Amino acid sequence: MAAANKTDGAKSNPESAPPKSSSKHGKVWVYGFDQVDAAQEYCGGDWDKTRGLLGGKGANLGDMTRIGVPVPPGFTATTEACNAYQADGKFPDGMWDQVLAALKEVEAKTGKRFGDPKNPLLVSVRSGAKFSMPGMMDTVLNVGLNPEVVEGMVKLIGDDKFVYDSYRRLVQMFGSVVLGIRDEPFEEVLEVQRAKAKVAIDADLKTADLKEIVTAFKAIVLRYARIEFPTDPYEQLRLAAEAVFKSWGGKRAVDYRNATGIAHDLGTAVNIQTMVFGNMGDTSATGVAMTRSSTNGEPHLEGDYLPNAQGEDVVAGIRATRTMDDLAKDMPESYTEYAEIARRLEKHYRNMQDMEFTIERGKLWLLQTRDGKRTAQAAVRIAVDMVDEGLITAQEAVMRIQPDQLDFFLHPQFTPKSKLDAAENGTRIATGLNVSPGAAVGVVAFDADLAERWAKEDKKQVIMVRPETKPDDVHGMLAAQGILTSRGGRTSHAALVARQFGRPAVVGVSELDIDMNGRVMTVDEREIKEGDWISIDGTTGEVYLGQMETMIPDLDDPWLSKLLGWADDFRRLQVWANSDYPADAERARKYGAQGIGLCRTEHMFFEPERLPIVQKMITSTSPTERREALDALLPFQRNDFAGLFRVMDGLPVIIRLIDPPLHEFLPSFEELTNKLADGKIRLMKAGTLAEIDGILEQVEAETQMLHRVEALRESNPMLGLRGVRLGIMIPELTKMQVRAIFEAACMVQEEGIDVHPEVMIPLTSHVNELKRQREVLEAEAKTVMEEQRTEVAYKFGTMIEIPRAALTAGEMAEFAEFLSFGTNDLTQTTFGISRDDAEAGFLIDYLQQGILDDNPFATIDPKGVGRLMGIAVTEGRAVRPALEVGICGEHGGEPKSIALCHKLGLNYVSCSPFRVPIARLAAAQAALSDIKK
Amino acid sequence: MAAANKTDGAKSNPESAPPKSSSKHGKVWVYGFDQVDAAQEYCGGDWDKTRGLLGGKGANLGDMTRIGVPVPPGFTATTEACNAYQADGKFPDGMWDQVLAALKEVEAKTGKRFGDPKNPLLVSVRSGAKFSMPGMMDTVLNVGLNPEVVEGMVKLIGDDKFVYDSYRRLVQMFGSVVLGIRDEPFEEVLEVQRAKAKVAIDADLKTADLKEIVTAFKAIVLRYARIEFPTDPYEQLRLAAEAVFKSWGGKRAVDYRNATGIAHDLGTAVNIQTMVFGNMGDTSATGVAMTRSSTNGEPHLEGDYLPNAQGEDVVAGIRATRTMDDLAKDMPESYTEYAEIARRLEKHYRNMQDMEFTIERGKLWLLQTRDGKRTAQAAVRIAVDMVDEGLITAQEAVMRIQPDQLDFFLHPQFTPKSKLDAAENGTRIATGLNVSPGAAVGVVAFDADLAERWAKEDKKQVIMVRPETKPDDVHGMLAAQGILTSRGGRTSHAALVARQFGRPAVVGVSELDIDMNGRVMTVDEREIKEGDWISIDGTTGEVYLGQMETMIPDLDDPWLSKLLGWADDFRRLQVWANSDYPADAERARKYGAQGIGLCRTEHMFFEPERLPIVQKMITSTSPTERREALDALLPFQRNDFAGLFRVMDGLPVIIRLIDPPLHEFLPSFEELTNKLADGKIRLMKAGTLAEIDGILEQVEAETQMLHRVEALRESNPMLGLRGVRLGIMIPELTKMQVRAIFEAACMVQEEGIDVHPEVMIPLTSHVNELKRQREVLEAEAKTVMEEQRTEVAYKFGTMIEIPRAALTAGEMAEFAEFLSFGTNDLTQTTFGISRDDAEAGFLIDYLQQGILDDNPFATIDPKGVGRLMGIAVTEGRAVRPALEVGICGEHGGEPKSIALCHKLGLNYVSCSPFRVPIARLAAAQAALSDIKK
Repeated sequence: MAAANKTDGAKSNPESAPPKSSSKHGKVWVYGFDQVDAAQEYCGGDWDKTRGLLGGKGANLGDMTRIGVPVPPGFTATTEACNAYQADGKFPDGMWDQVLAALKEVEAKTGKRFGDPKNPLLVSVRSGAKFSMPGMMDTVLNVGLNPEVVEGMVKLIGDDKFVYDSYRRLVQMFGSVVLGIRDEPFEEVLEVQRAKAKVAIDADLKTADLKEIVTAFKAIVLRYARIEFPTDPYEQLRLAAEAVFKSWGGKRAVDYRNATGIAHDLGTAVNIQTMVFGNMGDTSATGVAMTRSSTNGEPHLEGDYLPNAQGEDVVAGIRATRTMDDLAKDMPESYTEYAEIARRLEKHYRNMQDMEFTIERGKLWLLQTRDGKRTAQAAVRIAVDMVDEGLITAQEAVMRIQPDQLDFFLHPQFTPKSKLDAAENGTRIATGLNVSPGAAVGVVAFDADLAERWAKEDKKQVIMVRPETKPDDVHGMLAAQGILTSRGGRTSHAALVARQFGRPAVVGVSELDIDMNGRVMTVDEREIKEGDWISIDGTTGEVYLGQMETMIPDLDDPWLSKLLGWADDFRRLQVWANSDYPADAERARKYGAQGIGLCRTEHMFFEPERLPIVQKMITSTSPTERREALDALLPFQRNDFAGLFRVMDGLPVIIRLIDPPLHEFLPSFEELTNKLADGKIRLMKAGTLAEIDGILEQVEAETQMLHRVEALRESNPMLGLRGVRLGIMIPELTKMQVRAIFEAACMVQEEGIDVHPEVMIPLTSHVNELKRQREVLEAEAKTVMEEQRTEVAYKFGTMIEIPRAALTAGEMAEFAEFLSFGTNDLTQTTFGISRDDAEAGFLIDYLQQGILDDNPFATIDPKGVGRLMGIAVTEGRAVRPALEVGICGEHGGEPKSIALCHKLGLNYVSCSPFRVPIARLAAAQAALSDIKK
Repeated sequence: MAAANKTDGAKSNPESAPPKSSSKHGKVWVYGFDQVDAAQEYCGGDWDKTRGLLGGKGANLGDMTRIGVPVPPGFTATTEACNAYQADGKFPDGMWDQVLAALKEVEAKTGKRFGDPKNPLLVSVRSGAKFSMPGMMDTVLNVGLNPEVVEGMVKLIGDDKFVYDSYRRLVQMFGSVVLGIRDEPFEEVLEVQRAKAKVAIDADLKTADLKEIVTAFKAIVLRYARIEFPTDPYEQLRLAAEAVFKSWGGKRAVDYRNATGIAHDLGTAVNIQTMVFGNMGDTSATGVAMTRSSTNGEPHLEGDYLPNAQGEDVVAGIRATRTMDDLAKDMPESYTEYAEIARRLEKHYRNMQDMEFTIERGKLWLLQTRDGKRTAQAAVRIAVDMVDEGLITAQEAVMRIQPDQLDFFLHPQFTPKSKLDAAENGTRIATGLNVSPGAAVGVVAFDADLAERWAKEDKKQVIMVRPETKPDDVHGMLAAQGILTSRGGRTSHAALVARQFGRPAVVGVSELDIDMNGRVMTVDEREIKEGDWISIDGTTGEVYLGQMETMIPDLDDPWLSKLLGWADDFRRLQVWANSDYPADAERARKYGAQGIGLCRTEHMFFEPERLPIVQKMITSTSPTERREALDALLPFQRNDFAGLFRVMDGLPVIIRLIDPPLHEFLPSFEELTNKLADGKIRLMKAGTLAEIDGILEQVEAETQMLHRVEALRESNPMLGLRGVRLGIMIPELTKMQVRAIFEAACMVQEEGIDVHPEVMIPLTSHVNELKRQREVLEAEAKTVMEEQRTEVAYKFGTMIEIPRAALTAGEMAEFAEFLSFGTNDLTQTTFGISRDDAEAGFLIDYLQQGILDDNPFATIDPKGVGRLMGIAVTEGRAVRPALEVGICGEHGGEPKSIALCHKLGLNYVSCSPFRVPIARLAAAQAALSDIKK
């Protein structure tokens, strides 16, 4: 917003009046809202400094005034005055005189007079620092009321209830925020009075009640603050202004600044502004509206208002609000004016605005405007429309969308029909906090073990439901489709973990009553038993009964396409995708991927028809048997690769050779020991010889497998026999993979496909590993091409996922045409943290305690991992200037990490297909930010 | 040796004759042994170039001649001649004339004439390159013999058998090395002749046999080389010299140079030297002797000789050799001359010499001298004595001892008495390769599992015996006292692993016949069954029956003390020790440690009386229970620390807070599941209710423990919840440790001890971990000191054992007074290698295949780990110039790593007490090498 307030405009505005409240001391402590130009000039034309001088609120009100938006007149005492007050314990010389002079100006503008019972001016007194700051005195309304003025106003507007209610609010607010009296005595009085009057809410109290309350409130002030409630309006004003300045140095404000790092010498301004009232009859109204739809971005006014009402009434939802279309009919002039102001404000702030307004007896006043919140869909459309309307540039549009907002277009959503049905059938049962986006459907499981068992063994879709989650529950959360809790907030364990792992989640649904013993939860007397179907919407926080229909929104949104098109023009980084299967790759290409940065060959090994062959290859003791198993795997892998190559026709495809430790393909040690123990027991119970023989045979096979599993067991498999180490120890395996790659490449090239295979060797830590493997594998590749009597252009390269590999990338680059950062493993080894263990354990505490700002597995740690990457890029390119460098760790789809990759000069980022659009946008933003510097 | 040949002496020697064999072409191709000064002058005074010109052998013979040592006269054709021969395929112009002229000089010196039957000169022809090179033609002896000369010699010396044996050797050697005829036909003739003469060895053949052999050998030459064996001595000489030059370009020599990186243009020289004979009657003799004892370094001649014998006879051991004292009695003049020469050579070469000599009819000739091999003990004494004698400087003495040689003084040895007894009782049964030093005693176990079980469960001392070892055996090797194999060499798996882990080992004992099925091994019909006691000496390779007495030699050797004293004067690095117990620390201090660099507090937790309390602390679910357990541990830890402080009075003691994951203190998951499975089975067999109750109770307790163990299980514990992460998650535990440290420090300070505790926080990877823990712990330290009403000087610091910690050491240094490199973990994370898994697995293959030159867990990897250390030192000291930086990983006791630490500017290295003397010496060598540069 600041950028919109051009200093040029301010300086050249000839109507900008000189400060009228200048005093004999020369120093200006007070600026009228209509003197913002003078304030800005005093600040050297710098709008940010002006906001520092006048505070955010004061500067904003002045800015609106400057562009001719009707704002209730008022003025601001500056933060410099506040600082002077902090130093001397009193208003600086001349300030109070300037306040009085400014008040005179306001009286002149409004035609009302402060403290005049015949036509009284009431004002609000508000604090307003540069940055919004809870912990400081906020607001006192209706300053200027005293018994005489009250009587005068009653006569004037004929609504004594309104006037007395305003009065009791003044006494209460003043007592509380200015005099520091606790809320309890005031609340007690109200409670007693409501009981006496037999009403439930304050709004139903009668004038007589309110009068009694005023009397009681004044007594409270006398008792607790030991002063009579001031009847002099000027005394009220002075005390309120002083209270604002004092609150800057109060303990809560100081603590808040310490915690958030806001400087203590900024000070707060005081804003004194004419009160306006939307509840002065049928020609009055109050409301709030956006300049465009916050839901889908359509360009029309969207909001609610209430005639003859106050702001609180709109929020409280007691009366049915009316739409802006109604306003157009009911108060056409005000509507037209409002619509015109909306256009003006949009043009001024160059963004969609969320505006509060009050119409007092037919006169429209704007009380606030700010950039409006909006959905992802609306954000995209508004940004693109504004470019088309000439309001902003395409660069600005691209910079305005948070890349992660595009998640909306990519996560499952409930179909509109299913939501409509739910509304009709009343199956929407609760709403909680929308802490992790996406729709999820599953049967309720009340503990992690059950969730995991149902999901893994029974292949059920599960929603895990708990009062709250603990680290012990993570395995269940991972197995579940979504997570629902009755307690906890946005930074609760459940929320953190769900976002971490991309599981839709709704937390803090307090209506939910979970009975863990009865295995049942209750909402509004509806019982939902364990195993019943529910649906949750992590995007909205809604919880539904039953199994709702979901859909994945695709990227056909025309505004999004346009935006991403611009992004593609601006970015320097290419965006590739991590895909293991042709279907995967197809989606990636559709989403704009320019290559495959990582195909994990071993994922294919887990498919049911292949796993037994893989296990045979691993457990075979004779070279012949192993050879046979590898020969059997070859055609599968060849077909996999051929499929990928066809989809990626014309684009590079990086295939990583086998990476995980071999025991991952075998049954687990625990599983086998349990089976064996069971076998022993079954043996003791066996009745027939045939039964015994059968069990013995099985035990024998299981024992064999156990021995092999034991031999492969490692205390730290992450740092064990995997990656290139497998290639060195079992070169037949990687040779088979390379054969499959090149046989496939030759085959599709025959079909006319433009194929660009790149063979990637994982987990190297010493150049000799790369050198030896490349020798063996390149020889195999050449053999295949000779057999096939054709040539295929290819590259060999390595992952950089071990600190030593990064530190010796110069050596690596002699034997690698490309490097690809595996930042998942690189983060594990650079931090010495096992991700699997830590993310269900101490890492969550580290984030909650603030030891780490970001989860390094989500955002690349710039000082450790990023530094190693920088060394690798620099030293690798020094040896091989054309070295292709990319990233294929999960960080490749995360905006902050993408910015780092841009800065480090990588050629591309590679991420999951679903992150490709996000990465395109983030890469563009990184490039644009770079230019800006 | 090269350094000893001062160029000054060579240049200023007025007796140095000009090259006499200069030809009309001007270029000198041949130098007499007495013309080494001219050769050196030609080489610009550079001895190294002179060695290049004359080859190592020729230069050495010339050098001895120059200083007046009686060397049989001869001359050298230069490597330049060889290169000319390689280029043109013939001797360079003038060379042969120079050879003939030089031969004339030799004739003049010896009074014999080449080819003269009346007084024949015989010569040897030998190759001699700058670097010793197998694969080249080596030696032809007795050149100059032909039928006439043979007859003349027989007349002259009256020993026809000697002359004919010399003749058949000439024909055979010439045929083989000059004419390239295979050995087999010659050997066949000898075999047939031996059979005919019914003798077992060639030496027993009669003159008649030898004559027949000569005839047969000549026939072989005719058949295979298609030439008559040359009778012209000059033809023999020419062909032999040419063969030497040709052999330089032969395939085997070229391959060897390629493999070892020797330049192909160096060329070889040819040395032609007068033959002398020690077997010409009672006034002749031949032998070899050292100038000092090679066993203990005592300064007296030590060697063997045989009167009337040839060199081969001394080596063959057929006749009993005589000592040098005998020579003094038998041939006093020769002995006196020899002793005088020994002194001269020691002074010249400034080292103990190993000299070959021959006495021909009363005339002493030196045939070779070289630096003598010696034991560690002798090496130390000789170096120190030579300083005292003014032969070398103290710096040179320090540089002459390989630090690892000091191992001798530190490893267990068999007591002299036990070796004497073994010799008497004949219990020394075999000898193999001494691949890993030290003496070990134990019962024989023939497989790794048994070795481990006996060692761990039955607390037996075990020697593991196998035909050879495989990676699967490593757990047994680690559990054993020593390793014995019947197969394998110095780089076999057994040898590598044994050296790795400091287990004494003897391998390749081929006499050993191991019957794995019968569980018995046989040596010379003696049977040794599994479980029988044996003793092995890895220092000597000897194998003994029974249980021999061992001792640890201490460091009281006065020469060693003197040497280490000098080392201490020269080194800049301090040497500290890793010690957990007072007894440990006492040894370290005795060995010269200047501080404790690492006390591992958790080692104390494993002691039997404490482990149950530790387990209670870990498994307790209530804070009160945990508190109680910690309170119970406190006094133990306080006493531990007090003991250490007392021993280290006046020196710093670094105490590391708890490091390992908590599950290490609990029973293993496998152990518990097996117990539970057993419980189920026992339950099914149980007969009485009481029995059932008992089992159920136990099962219940085991199940409880299993749950806790499961909760603590991690997939990669090395990268899991340990080190500072424990301190963050369970601050009570580290607070207890800090309390114990400071209570102990205050206590011993009261006793008058000068105490310097340093608290070390392990495994930090982010500065915030260090910052938070330090805040908590330093507060606790201050509380204790206030309670105790005293102040103790202390430091807080951290280990650097994670790459990120090294990369952010600048940040760390803001909160650390010291950094200590934990290079074990740093190597694991920098390489992404789990040491436990890899050293029993692929790492051994990596070393055998040459992918890694050194085991990075033994020697710091300079490019990865060393680079990170350098970054940490530089950036840490930039922030805190007085930062104390050391190393406490095992590398701290390894000489190459110590040199790196010196180069990086560390303050100290810390190693196991047994490595302290080695580190003192290595640190001195690092400092001296640094100065030399």
